[in-house]
Amino acid sequence: MQFAAAPNKLGKQTILYSNPPQVVSFAAIVGDVEGQGRFGQEFDLVLEDDLWGEDSWEKAECKMFQQAVQTAAQKAELELTQIDFLLGGDLLNQIISSNFAARQLGLPFLGLYGACSTMAESLLLGSMIVSAWNASCVACVTGSHFSAAERQYRYPLEYGNQRTPTSQRTVTGSGATILADGGCNATNIFVTHGTVGRVVDLGITDLNNMGAAMAPGAADTIVSHLKDTERTAEDYDLIVTGDLGTYGAELCRQLCKEKGYDISKVHMDCGDRIFLPQQDPHAGGSGCGCSAVVLNGVLYKKMLEGTYNRILFLATGALMNPDISLQGESIPGIAHAVVLERRGQ
Amino acid sequence: MQFAAAPNKLGKQTILYSNPPQVVSFAAIVGDVEGQGRFGQEFDLVLEDDLWGEDSWEKAECKMFQQAVQTAAQKAELELTQIDFLLGGDLLNQIISSNFAARQLGLPFLGLYGACSTMAESLLLGSMIVSAWNASCVACVTGSHFSAAERQYRYPLEYGNQRTPTSQRTVTGSGATILADGGCNATNIFVTHGTVGRVVDLGITDLNNMGAAMAPGAADTIVSHLKDTERTAEDYDLIVTGDLGTYGAELCRQLCKEKGYDISKVHMDCGDRIFLPQQDPHAGGSGCGCSAVVLNGVLYKKMLEGTYNRILFLATGALMNPDISLQGESIPGIAHAVVLERRGQ
Repeated sequence: MQFAAAPNKLGKQTILYSNPPQVVSFAAIVGDVEGQGRFGQEFDLVLEDDLWGEDSWEKAECKMFQQAVQTAAQKAELELTQIDFLLGGDLLNQIISSNFAARQLGLPFLGLYGACSTMAESLLLGSMIVSAWNASCVACVTGSHFSAAERQYRYPLEYGNQRTPTSQRTVTGSGATILADGGCNATNIFVTHGTVGRVVDLGITDLNNMGAAMAPGAADTIVSHLKDTERTAEDYDLIVTGDLGTYGAELCRQLCKEKGYDISKVHMDCGDRIFLPQQDPHAGGSGCGCSAVVLNGVLYKKMLEGTYNRILFLATGALMNPDISLQGESIPGIAHAVVLERRGQ
Repeated sequence: MQFAAAPNKLGKQTILYSNPPQVVSFAAIVGDVEGQGRFGQEFDLVLEDDLWGEDSWEKAECKMFQQAVQTAAQKAELELTQIDFLLGGDLLNQIISSNFAARQLGLPFLGLYGACSTMAESLLLGSMIVSAWNASCVACVTGSHFSAAERQYRYPLEYGNQRTPTSQRTVTGSGATILADGGCNATNIFVTHGTVGRVVDLGITDLNNMGAAMAPGAADTIVSHLKDTERTAEDYDLIVTGDLGTYGAELCRQLCKEKGYDISKVHMDCGDRIFLPQQDPHAGGSGCGCSAVVLNGVLYKKMLEGTYNRILFLATGALMNPDISLQGESIPGIAHAVVLERRGQ
């Protein structure tokens, strides 16, 4: 059987939004440690501690997730009922932060799981829904919590386990972007393309080296995006990856270079930047929240100020399950990407 | 801020596919117990045991997932490379069945998490992508595995734990549907509408009563769908829910009736039907695989034969996380729906 080519698809993995959605509003909430980091002044809310009045870290994560959506809506003076669909996911099993927040918000909800690639995955699918005019307005959201993630994926914090040099600190934070039909004149930032990632595995088995597990997926998506769109790295003011951390970011640049694309002049990794060296973050930040809070706390503002006109934003996920790792499986990675473009003044 | 109404949205939760995608192919694989059940003769493959030559249940689940996509492609004489995007998810933490299968298949992959609602969620989003012409062809897939699910969500099977009357048996099986642009003349089954569910919680806390946890979400989506489309239950030859089981199905019909919609004449629940009484399944089947194998093994065929012309297909998910349950939280549910319609001869 033969199919006609899809008019809005470029190459093998990239979607061109024929009616590019507009960024209507954005919000970022972070924990206390992130508030003391490099971008501490930029976030809408910095929590005083990581429980935020709740009786567990998991419940605090749910509350951040919900609050990020509400804050983004409030900033644009939107009622929650004006949001057609909520798209999101998180790192906790059964994406409970997202599901419990969706229960409180009462919005039609599409749950996603892409590990730390969720911010880009939600923007990619959200843009598709708005662009196809199945919705006027969608909210895309994700988040993570250091203590909840350590408990679930590695060791309970109470063990006082020693961290390895390649380990990263899961960001406590949540970020939300509200997208709407391009005619609404909210900001001048548009989502023009999305590139859907593939699951790529180079055989990493170290639970404390997520950067290396994610770098091949990130490089694969960057190279595919540039091929699909027939663009070069220089067509972007910034190519930003989610949470590869110091070593993963270096590995990603190297893998891109081996495939003929030198991104080193325009590449920035959120995980590599979010904490300050004196905070001793080892290889940097990680988690769904890492790229989510940098995008929603820092990058959109820099676009509005005119610092960047065109960004390739990638969120990068390590698909790590402790049980299957104990069965000898390696940890694959995936990265999704969207192009954010400032148009006009 | 005001937005223009989205032309392809009906009411609050329903999407009308302006260019309805066509079902190109479908496949269902099940375990040995399911093969002895009511629909045992209908499936493409019945496994002899639940390990299928692998050394763990989790790996067997990954293999089923991958094989379901490959079988569906082979049945329509499609190359895997003709599939633009793969959409799917499963019940295992970090949706590892899906992720590991996506790694083997090498396709651009969008990971979803909607617990047992995944078959409908993937069809809903997959239809959106095809309908918006961002892709010519997508594969939608999910699956589950009894032994892997029991180990993760309840007790290791080796404990020989006694099951309660409301407990259901997670279906071992995987189902895949390939959708493509409506002009490809593959079958005469089209996806015409999708209804995005909300997370609904009536306060169930019993890990062995998933039917009751899911029924309110299922009823909410059915009622919203009928309101949004201004249809009645009689406009459908069949309203099929995923895996509410005996008690959940009864509760769902009751909740719909209380809201003024009597679905009892056209309602069927996959979980209630998949096993035979002599198999002692207690309240029936459950899991992502339950509705996936009934849809892909039985229902499409009955549509092609002309038994049904229009089906409202719902997959129903219980958003159950054992850790947050121990923290006192209840188990919310969600259900997504798609309309399947046979057109012409």
